[in-house]
Amino acid sequence: MILTPRMTGCVIKIFTWILESRLIGSMLLYLLVKANLIHKLISFAEFKEPPTYVPTHPWEDLEEQEIKTIKPGMSPPEQVEEAMDSLPICPKMTENCQHSFQRWTIQDYSRAYTAREVTPLMVAERFLAAVNESSNPALQMSFFISYNPDDILKKAHESTLRYEKGEPISILDGVLIAVKDEIDCTPYPTTGGTTWLHKVRPCTDDACCIKHLRSCGAIIVGKTNMHELGLGTSGINPHYGPSRNPYDPSKISGGSSSGSATVVSAGLCPVAIGVDGGGSVRMPAALCGIVGLKPTFGRVSHSGVLPFNWTIGMVGVLAGTVEDALITYAAISGNLPQNQPNSLQPRVDIPLLKSKNTISNIKMAKYKETVEVTIPEIEVMRLAHYITIGSECHASLASRLEKLNTAELGWDARVALRVYSTFTSKEYLNAQRIRNRQLYIYKEIFKKADIIVTPTTGVTAYPIDSDAIKNGEFDYVNGAALIRYQIAGNFLGFPAVSVPVGYDKQGMPIGLQFIGRPWSEATLIHMAYAVQEITSHKKPKVFYDLLKKEQVE
Amino acid sequence: MILTPRMTGCVIKIFTWILESRLIGSMLLYLLVKANLIHKLISFAEFKEPPTYVPTHPWEDLEEQEIKTIKPGMSPPEQVEEAMDSLPICPKMTENCQHSFQRWTIQDYSRAYTAREVTPLMVAERFLAAVNESSNPALQMSFFISYNPDDILKKAHESTLRYEKGEPISILDGVLIAVKDEIDCTPYPTTGGTTWLHKVRPCTDDACCIKHLRSCGAIIVGKTNMHELGLGTSGINPHYGPSRNPYDPSKISGGSSSGSATVVSAGLCPVAIGVDGGGSVRMPAALCGIVGLKPTFGRVSHSGVLPFNWTIGMVGVLAGTVEDALITYAAISGNLPQNQPNSLQPRVDIPLLKSKNTISNIKMAKYKETVEVTIPEIEVMRLAHYITIGSECHASLASRLEKLNTAELGWDARVALRVYSTFTSKEYLNAQRIRNRQLYIYKEIFKKADIIVTPTTGVTAYPIDSDAIKNGEFDYVNGAALIRYQIAGNFLGFPAVSVPVGYDKQGMPIGLQFIGRPWSEATLIHMAYAVQEITSHKKPKVFYDLLKKEQVE
Repeated sequence: MILTPRMTGCVIKIFTWILESRLIGSMLLYLLVKANLIHKLISFAEFKEPPTYVPTHPWEDLEEQEIKTIKPGMSPPEQVEEAMDSLPICPKMTENCQHSFQRWTIQDYSRAYTAREVTPLMVAERFLAAVNESSNPALQMSFFISYNPDDILKKAHESTLRYEKGEPISILDGVLIAVKDEIDCTPYPTTGGTTWLHKVRPCTDDACCIKHLRSCGAIIVGKTNMHELGLGTSGINPHYGPSRNPYDPSKISGGSSSGSATVVSAGLCPVAIGVDGGGSVRMPAALCGIVGLKPTFGRVSHSGVLPFNWTIGMVGVLAGTVEDALITYAAISGNLPQNQPNSLQPRVDIPLLKSKNTISNIKMAKYKETVEVTIPEIEVMRLAHYITIGSECHASLASRLEKLNTAELGWDARVALRVYSTFTSKEYLNAQRIRNRQLYIYKEIFKKADIIVTPTTGVTAYPIDSDAIKNGEFDYVNGAALIRYQIAGNFLGFPAVSVPVGYDKQGMPIGLQFIGRPWSEATLIHMAYAVQEITSHKKPKVFYDLLKKEQVE
Repeated sequence: MILTPRMTGCVIKIFTWILESRLIGSMLLYLLVKANLIHKLISFAEFKEPPTYVPTHPWEDLEEQEIKTIKPGMSPPEQVEEAMDSLPICPKMTENCQHSFQRWTIQDYSRAYTAREVTPLMVAERFLAAVNESSNPALQMSFFISYNPDDILKKAHESTLRYEKGEPISILDGVLIAVKDEIDCTPYPTTGGTTWLHKVRPCTDDACCIKHLRSCGAIIVGKTNMHELGLGTSGINPHYGPSRNPYDPSKISGGSSSGSATVVSAGLCPVAIGVDGGGSVRMPAALCGIVGLKPTFGRVSHSGVLPFNWTIGMVGVLAGTVEDALITYAAISGNLPQNQPNSLQPRVDIPLLKSKNTISNIKMAKYKETVEVTIPEIEVMRLAHYITIGSECHASLASRLEKLNTAELGWDARVALRVYSTFTSKEYLNAQRIRNRQLYIYKEIFKKADIIVTPTTGVTAYPIDSDAIKNGEFDYVNGAALIRYQIAGNFLGFPAVSVPVGYDKQGMPIGLQFIGRPWSEATLIHMAYAVQEITSHKKPKVFYDLLKKEQVE
C-alpha cells in the first residue's frame, strides 16, 4: 500500500507535487484509493441499506377547505370507498362526451360491470386484442415491456366471478391498471427498461403499492415501457422501442414513465402507475393529455420500487381524469416506510369534489387573489437536482454496472452514467446545500400563496428522430425544457399535479401544473378538478374504446 | 456548450467512445461539467446553508440509575449549580494528592477565590507568565495560537471585583478556560490552525458555547493550537509549532484538539474546549492523561464553530477531572440548533456522583455482568468516516481553497485535501449506507450492553520527528491506530468519554473509552468517575501549579 510509509520532509513535498499535477496525479490517486480498499469496500461494494437521509417533511395540519380526513388504519378498499363518497354522482360518459372527449373512467367500468353490460373478462380480452393490434408494423406503439395474457385473463375471470356473485371488492374491482417497469409486480420481471437488470435482481414479490391495488380487486395488466433506467425524458427506449404519443405517433411521449402515460392516453387502462424522479410522471402525462399526480415525498411506500435514487423519486398516478387520480391516490396512500416514527405519519386527506367546482367558484370560496411570484435560481436547482439524482442513481447501480458489459446499455444511458460517475462528493454535498436554500425560498413563497401554478413543461411533444429509434438520443436542450418546471416536486418533496389544459398548434396536449405545500394533495386535486371542468378535450389519434370494443381509427 | 447539440446515431456513438476512454474522457468530462455551469454554480459556489441532513437521534428516555434531570429552560449558571449539587463535597486537592497526583480543579479555584487565598487576577498573571515561559526555546510547547494579555487581565479583574463583593456568578467565575482555534471567540481571530482562514472569514461574535461559559463568569484565556484545519491526528502544526505532550515534550500530543489537551494536561487551565470530528477531543485527552468528553451529536450548539463538516463533529470538553468535565458539560449543554423541533430537544441529565462510586459498587448496583461484544467492520467504518469527513471538509472549504495559493497550506493538509477532492458522490453516498448498517449493528449491541468499553487509542504518544516539525507528516498507520476505536462516536453520533487509566512503559498516559447510547452522557460520566476513583495518576514533566505559583520542574 503506497500510503503506508510515514512521509516527512522531501518525500512528502515530492509526493504532493506529483499528486497535484493533473494527469499523473489523477492516476496516482486512482491507485491510492484502490490500494486503500475504498474501491472494494465502498465505491463498488454491495449494500442493502439506503443512505441515511431523506427529505421527509414532518406532518403538518394544513388549513384546507372542503377536505375530508380519512381515519388512520383503514384498508385500501376502505380508503377508496371514502374517496368515492367525496365524488359527485357521475353521469354516464356518453352524456359528458357531447361537448368534449372523455376517456372511460373507473366509475364507467364499475358501472358497466355492475350492470352486466360487459364483464372484466370481456374487457381483458379486448385489451389483449388492442395491445396486439397496437404492436403491428403500422403502429409500433411500444406500450408494454411485458404482459402476460394468461395472468390477465385469470385475474379478469376471478373478478368476473365476484361481479356475478354481486360481491366486487371495491370500485377498482376488475379495473385494468398498468404499471411502470420500475415497480415490482409478479409474475413479471422488473427490467427498469434494460435487458439485464431483472437477471441480476429477480422480482420475487409485489411492491407495496401493487399489493394495495390488488387488495382493491384491480387487474394489473403488465409492465409499461420506460426510458432506460429512468435516465432520460424522451421515452425512446432502444431495446423495447420508442413510446409513441397517442395524439401523434410520430412524436415522443415524454418520460421516463412513458408507457404508463401512453396506455392511459390511448384508453387501454383508465389508470397507470409511474415513478416521478424528475417530472417522470407529470411530464409524460402533460405530453399525452392526461392527469399526472406526484404525491408528497413519503406519501406512498417505495418498498418494491427499483432504488434508482433515495431522496428524489415518488410513486405517482397517471389517469384519464382527476377523479380517477384521486381514487387511485386513495388506494395506494398511507403506508409510509417502516423507519418513519408514528408521530410523523401523515393522515390521508381527500378533497370533497361533490359541489360544483369551477375555477371561479374555487377562487370565490378560497383563493381570494392571484399573486405573481418569482422563483429564483430555477437553473441552479435543476443542476443540483441533476447531480443529486445522477449521484444516487450511480451509487445505486455501481456494484451491478461494474460487472456489466456496457454494450448492453443504450448509448444515451451510457453517456448519462459516465457523466454521473464523475460527480464528486463535494458536488453532491453542495447540491444538498442548494436544496436547503431552495426549501427556504419555497417556504417563503408558500407564506403568500397556497398553490404555485406553472406550465407543466417548457415544450410540447417533439418528433421522434428516425435515427434515435435504434441508438437513442441525448437531447440536452429539449430535456431541460421538458423538466424545467417540475424539479421542486422532486428535489423538495412537494406534491404536484399536472392536468390537461389545451393543445398547441399541432394539436399536441399542453399540461398545467399545480405545486403545493407538503401533504396538500387534496387542495391540488381540487384545483385540477376545477380546471378539468372547464377544459375541452380532444380525442387522441390512437384510442381504444374497450367498453364499446371500438378499435383505433 | 458542447452538450447543447442534439446527438443521435454515429455522433452519439463516437461521443460515448471518447467519453469512456480513461484519459481523453476525463478531460472531456472536465470541460463538459465546466461548460454546464456545474463548476460555477455548484462545485465552487459559496453557500451559507449546510447540507440538509444530520445524524440526529430522536430524544429517548433512558433507564438510568442515579441520574438527575435538569428542568428545561434553565440558564447555564443554573445548570452548573445543578451539576454542583450532584457532586460529593470535595476534599482539598492536597489531601487527595497524598496517594496520587491530581490537577487543580474548578472547585479548587473557586474555593481559593472565595477564601481570598488568591484572586482571579493573580491566577491570570501566573498563567501569562507560565505561557510565556513555556514558549522559550528550551520548551517550545506551542500551547496557543493566540492569547491576549490585556483581555485576559481585564476579565480577571472583573471577576476579582465580583469575588470582592461576594457575588461570583457561578462556580466557574474566574476559572480559566482555553478554546480550540476552531471555535469563534472574541477578540481572537479563528484560524482553524491556518495562516489565512481568519482573513477570509473574520470572527465577529462568540460561538454559542462560549457565550454559555462567559455567562457563568469563566475567563477565556485564548485560542489553543490545533492540527491544521483539523485534518490530522498528530497535532504537529507547521505554522504554529507542534503541540508537545506535557508528559514528554519530545512526543506528540495527539489532535486535532492538541493545544486544548496540552494546556489542561500542563495545569494551565482546569478545562479547555475542543471539537471532536474523528476522536479529536478524546484522543489527545487520552495521550495527555486527561479526561475527554464528546457529547451526543446535537447536544451542544455548533453555532460559531468552523463548519469543517456537518454530520460528524461535536464540541467537546477536555478536563483534568471527571467532575470538571461534568460541570463544563452542564454549562455548555442544552442549546440545540434552531431547526430542531422542540419535541426532539433532549433534556440535560446529570449523574449523581455524591455516593461513593467505585467500579465494584457501580457493577453491584447496576451493571450485573460484563459481556464481550464483537464490533464487525471497524475498518470499513473508519474508511466510510474518512470519506464522509473528507468530503464534507472539502465541500465546506472548496470556494475558499479555489482562491488560495496552496503554498499557504502545510504539506500534509495539501495531501489530505487533494485526496478528498477525488471522492465521488457515489463514494459519499455509499459511506452513508455503511453508516446506516453500522447504526443497526450498534443498536443490536446496545440491546445487550449499556456501555461499550474500549481503549481510547490503538497506540500511545509517539516521538515527534524533527523533520516533521517544519513540513508536517503524513502517517497513515499511526493515524489510523490513534482513531481506530473512536469512530462510532463521530460517525453514529454516540456520546463517548475517555478517562486516564494508566501509563505505558515509557510513562505515557493510556486512556479508557466508554461509548454509550444517544443522550447517555450521565451514565458515561458515572463510569468515568468510578474509574478515576481507583486510578493512580502521575504528574506530567511540564506542569504549572497556578494556585501555588509553582513553575515547571
